[in-house]
Amino acid sequence: MGSHGGRELVLSRRPEGQVTDDCFEVRHTEVADPPPGEVVVRTLWLSFDPAQRGWLNDVASYVPPVPLGAPMRAYGVGEVVATADERFAVGDLVHGMLGWREYAGGEPGPAGLGLEHLPAGLDDPKLALGAVGITGLTAYFGMYDVARVKPGDVVLVTAAAGATGSVAGQLARLRGAAKVVGTAGSEEKRAWVVEEAGFDDCLDHYGDRLFRRVGAAAPAGYDVVFDNVGGELLDAALGNIAIGGRVALCGSISTGYRPERPEVGLRNYPFLTTRRARMEGFLVSDFAERFDAARADLLGWVNRGELRTTDDVVEGLENAPATLRRLFEGRNLGKQLLHVADPGSAAGR
Amino acid sequence: MGSHGGRELVLSRRPEGQVTDDCFEVRHTEVADPPPGEVVVRTLWLSFDPAQRGWLNDVASYVPPVPLGAPMRAYGVGEVVATADERFAVGDLVHGMLGWREYAGGEPGPAGLGLEHLPAGLDDPKLALGAVGITGLTAYFGMYDVARVKPGDVVLVTAAAGATGSVAGQLARLRGAAKVVGTAGSEEKRAWVVEEAGFDDCLDHYGDRLFRRVGAAAPAGYDVVFDNVGGELLDAALGNIAIGGRVALCGSISTGYRPERPEVGLRNYPFLTTRRARMEGFLVSDFAERFDAARADLLGWVNRGELRTTDDVVEGLENAPATLRRLFEGRNLGKQLLHVADPGSAAGR
Repeated sequence: MGSHGGRELVLSRRPEGQVTDDCFEVRHTEVADPPPGEVVVRTLWLSFDPAQRGWLNDVASYVPPVPLGAPMRAYGVGEVVATADERFAVGDLVHGMLGWREYAGGEPGPAGLGLEHLPAGLDDPKLALGAVGITGLTAYFGMYDVARVKPGDVVLVTAAAGATGSVAGQLARLRGAAKVVGTAGSEEKRAWVVEEAGFDDCLDHYGDRLFRRVGAAAPAGYDVVFDNVGGELLDAALGNIAIGGRVALCGSISTGYRPERPEVGLRNYPFLTTRRARMEGFLVSDFAERFDAARADLLGWVNRGELRTTDDVVEGLENAPATLRRLFEGRNLGKQLLHVADPGSAAGR
Repeated sequence: MGSHGGRELVLSRRPEGQVTDDCFEVRHTEVADPPPGEVVVRTLWLSFDPAQRGWLNDVASYVPPVPLGAPMRAYGVGEVVATADERFAVGDLVHGMLGWREYAGGEPGPAGLGLEHLPAGLDDPKLALGAVGITGLTAYFGMYDVARVKPGDVVLVTAAAGATGSVAGQLARLRGAAKVVGTAGSEEKRAWVVEEAGFDDCLDHYGDRLFRRVGAAAPAGYDVVFDNVGGELLDAALGNIAIGGRVALCGSISTGYRPERPEVGLRNYPFLTTRRARMEGFLVSDFAERFDAARADLLGWVNRGELRTTDDVVEGLENAPATLRRLFEGRNLGKQLLHVADPGSAAGR
């Protein structure tokens, strides 16, 4: 055992617009063998989520800002390389809040690294960050508990080629939605959304006449909107909401998650009144008590081929800031991941 | 009996901006004695509601537009002056969709005039258009069923000196709200809201620093927002919503209910996500099955002095367009009514 030397990326200054490489400093650290009750985890995969950009703002929100001088906060999958907690053995694969670092040491509980073992029956560990992880859980609770999709519903999912949107639309279909429409920003993505993820249609979410095009795809309106984009696209969705419609506000990638107010306001809000519709925001963390049951559902669908996923993988910890930028540049198809290392000790078991 | 000669105001052209007198034509009509199953009602009081401006747009909405050449649609209180329906006697006081006319003849059911007798125990008939009528019912279902106010909540009601807002805030207090904040556009109104309607505070909803002023009145945020205004004021409320907050979208007077899109968009919608809050529109007509029970509650509170109301009365049918304009000019304090006639036959009973 001894100590575990590796790199970490610490926040050196807060970004103003887009995240740039020089907001982070690469540091070499030595993580010592764990004191009693702690573990050391080697990072294998890191998850990239739009909300991370919000965590960099010096603004009180649902989680405290990442402090200057601290490693960037990030979900990840790792391998236990040293342990002084009997619940974890060397070689165990875990997921938790590992951060942008090659080795993470600490207390495994929710106040520390928040570690859990990968679910049994999961063949591909990186799915624990995507369709069977926070991303899939976000789609699950957003679509089922917030939007309350029901059989026969007409559904719109924005950013449908993204990790959350692609799962959300498929979950609507699994619950019996009559029509599932997506939006995405490139032809490649739109083809994937329809051909692989099985959406009925996928609209270009750039380009003009958004209101009309969103409306034309569902002439009787949308019973459910699962929104990851905000701005003009969300506004077009509000103007095409059905009577009794439900809008689940998952995220607002178009705002850049920057501290200033979004540039584009919602002007179609009076439709919420005339259509008796509801728009509701949510955070997946509020549903933590039901994560295990939901993960079992998601894993079952993935393993039976009823839920299709894809990943977008970048290599190397040093590329973490650029990988986060990809989300805001609309470049990722499916779950954006960074591959940091292969399992070592785990490989020998 | 014979026939009943009187005036009516028919829609002669659709307004583009504000309603003007020349959008309506005064016509003399003779309403004949009713055929079997119909009644003739003499209008005593007319109700003025912001939604009426929306009914003038040539846009499909939750009710069809008022047709050109037809009398303006309006709630009213009247007196039955001729009847061929055994449920109604001459002299009965009723409320229903009488329109801008001195005499209304027709079928009394929901597809016709929608007549109902005034509730028993109602001393002041015009309350059937205000706190014990559609206005009070709107406040009741919006505050209790949509916003779901509960004991201890901090509540914001916009346009709190208006007919609906003034009742909504008092209903929140009756349900045990910890703090009820209103907004209104004049010093006279703000004084009434605090001194008569018993709100804790009433903010000027014009003027600058709206976001800060709305926030300063409730540093921990608003659990409930009952919005009648929309626009910048609603946006300020969204930015000050508490975790788990509920925004009931009752109306949007700032939009003028014109066919074009509102000028001011909501830019604080991402707060709905980070605060896990909900914004929901509603129409009181969706709660029609529960009107009788709610009216009994409202009447009880009024009669016990627990619900304070005030009226703003204009005289003469010819002033109906100007009376509707008063709502959009922010001139009314309390329920805006037009007095058309005093009960005649009823007086002799």
